[in-house]
Amino acid sequence: MSEYLPGLAGVPATKSNISDIDGEKGILFYRGYPIEELAQHSSFEETTLLLLDGRLPTEQELQNFHQQLVANRTIKFHTRGMMKNLPPTGHPMEMLQTVVASLSMFYPGSECLTDDDACNDLNYIHNTTVKIIARIACIVAMWEHIRNGYDPVAPRDDLSYAENFLYMFTGKEPDPMLARIMDVCLILHAEHTINASTFAVLVNASTLANPYGVVAAAIGALSGPLHGGANQKVLQMLEEIGTPDKAEEYVDKRLANKEVIWGMGHREYSTKDPRATILQGLMDQFMEARGGDINPLFEVAKAVEVVCEDRLAKKGVYANVDFYSGLLYAEMGIPADQFTTIFAIARSAGWLAHWREQLADNRIFRPTQVYIGEPQRKYVTINKR
Amino acid sequence: MSEYLPGLAGVPATKSNISDIDGEKGILFYRGYPIEELAQHSSFEETTLLLLDGRLPTEQELQNFHQQLVANRTIKFHTRGMMKNLPPTGHPMEMLQTVVASLSMFYPGSECLTDDDACNDLNYIHNTTVKIIARIACIVAMWEHIRNGYDPVAPRDDLSYAENFLYMFTGKEPDPMLARIMDVCLILHAEHTINASTFAVLVNASTLANPYGVVAAAIGALSGPLHGGANQKVLQMLEEIGTPDKAEEYVDKRLANKEVIWGMGHREYSTKDPRATILQGLMDQFMEARGGDINPLFEVAKAVEVVCEDRLAKKGVYANVDFYSGLLYAEMGIPADQFTTIFAIARSAGWLAHWREQLADNRIFRPTQVYIGEPQRKYVTINKR
Repeated sequence: MSEYLPGLAGVPATKSNISDIDGEKGILFYRGYPIEELAQHSSFEETTLLLLDGRLPTEQELQNFHQQLVANRTIKFHTRGMMKNLPPTGHPMEMLQTVVASLSMFYPGSECLTDDDACNDLNYIHNTTVKIIARIACIVAMWEHIRNGYDPVAPRDDLSYAENFLYMFTGKEPDPMLARIMDVCLILHAEHTINASTFAVLVNASTLANPYGVVAAAIGALSGPLHGGANQKVLQMLEEIGTPDKAEEYVDKRLANKEVIWGMGHREYSTKDPRATILQGLMDQFMEARGGDINPLFEVAKAVEVVCEDRLAKKGVYANVDFYSGLLYAEMGIPADQFTTIFAIARSAGWLAHWREQLADNRIFRPTQVYIGEPQRKYVTINKR
Repeated sequence: MSEYLPGLAGVPATKSNISDIDGEKGILFYRGYPIEELAQHSSFEETTLLLLDGRLPTEQELQNFHQQLVANRTIKFHTRGMMKNLPPTGHPMEMLQTVVASLSMFYPGSECLTDDDACNDLNYIHNTTVKIIARIACIVAMWEHIRNGYDPVAPRDDLSYAENFLYMFTGKEPDPMLARIMDVCLILHAEHTINASTFAVLVNASTLANPYGVVAAAIGALSGPLHGGANQKVLQMLEEIGTPDKAEEYVDKRLANKEVIWGMGHREYSTKDPRATILQGLMDQFMEARGGDINPLFEVAKAVEVVCEDRLAKKGVYANVDFYSGLLYAEMGIPADQFTTIFAIARSAGWLAHWREQLADNRIFRPTQVYIGEPQRKYVTINKR
């Protein structure tokens, strides 16, 4: 009998070849490629294929995949009808979990999944993966319009994944620099080994449940405040600070009260989160390109970063990916409660890679418990209690 | 570093005081009470309170809980509107996952959940538990009408949980004996330690995700053919056999081909599943009460049971709970693809007891992985691949 470790901390739950983290050196690898190289050279479409297939695609393969994604941007009017019945006040992550789960009813076929890795229908697996990844961004963008009482914006075939998402979300042709930043954000959030939502994928996949339901379960896990959602808090914190000159006082006061500084530190990294370094560089480029014409919160963020670097770097605590992403999303016209849905859009690539990996060597998850309850006792009739 | 065990087999993932199994003696305990005593004396409402609170309720507590459940049988018209947009051909478990997930948008408030067990809002936890358990049966029953193009049947305040479910499902006053059998089936399926769907609850709950999403994730896991759904297969098997005289030949042929006999054996019990013994008794009573006026498949089931007892009992393989439940559900007018939704209705009690237990001593699930992928490699531009 193994030892009980709360949260299964340090307990290996799977063998995986999808991603790896070197927390001491601050390196994140997707299929062996450092995230910096993918952020510099790759696109979300290409990175998704890399995560799914284990190798970088040829030009033809990438072109085919892009076309498949484009062909799956159409959402059935029954899905829209469903979304119009959801309350506009609900959290977008709850909407996303609901709508993704419903897709299984519109696109059946998961009965082909089997426990025998040699027998799995790879066409079904690939086609469903495309269906989910293509549609998840469209659903998020459509919701922004539906919840405000407007008809959604139709997708455009001539745009990349990131561009089309921004186009459908805002209804406007996206700024090329911001579209590229969104593309990089999607790459950076696409995968991160076995976190709670990815683990939820493995558990659900292991029963051979349909993949829409598997991804819906992962969206649920990601929606929890202990998992996704910190970038929304960063933005609120920057708004609360207000001006760069208030940053030092704010940070020191919170540190003195042993309160968390949102967007600082990551349990997997004892040095700077490599994704944060990339976003920091993009934010600096963006600020330079815009000159003075910029949300003043960017200056607040730079000031917080400087103070935190001075106070926390010696403890191995640095800005993480959430520290920068929220500000950049806000600049794209995305409201704060939609930040975690973007995380889900990106992570759908990693989730589905793990789904496929689980099916290729499946064993249903059925851990044990340490029973600490009552010993056997006798039922007492209600009038004698 | 712990050893890697596929499916976390034998690895304790939680401490729990909700239920316990003695697989060698064939005993299932809810909070220390053997399932036989609950099946004989208790109701689903009382058993649910027992699972949630850890003790049998007083008469007043039970009455209050019943009233709370009754008061929560009303479903918003927007939920009906949503359901009308779902394809009638979709699997009811997929419908249920979708609709339960959507409830979080109609009933917000999960922001009160906290990682600090002392701070959790027990009123929110109890009220949400009632909302889910009361509504899950109504949603299943409503779907049976909506998917056939009819308006759902309104709930009735004067009926017990099991009676109201059958009433809303069939539109008819339920036969008292069948209603009691449904009540017992719900008791028997309400909880069963850490299986894949209950584990999905723990993983999702540990992020402090909203409870509707937590239950939706569990419904997804339960929908997988490796988890729920065997009673549907039993019924199909009995129909395939057709008449009692064909049972022996059918069973022996399948055993010779090393094929599974649906409804036989359970990995947790090396002797007879105690729930199966209870259902077998109820089925015998029911057959006796009805005399000849009975579905001929009951006789087929008795014949299969006799042959399997002879061939498999020496190997420790006996009929399980699925062997009997499907036949009884069919007798109540429930189609086979709705059997697993009844499992979900019953198990919502156990799931929510585990949700509450997880919150009372929470640690986010983040196991590790054994990385077996590529070592670090360099990005290659697309024209050189």
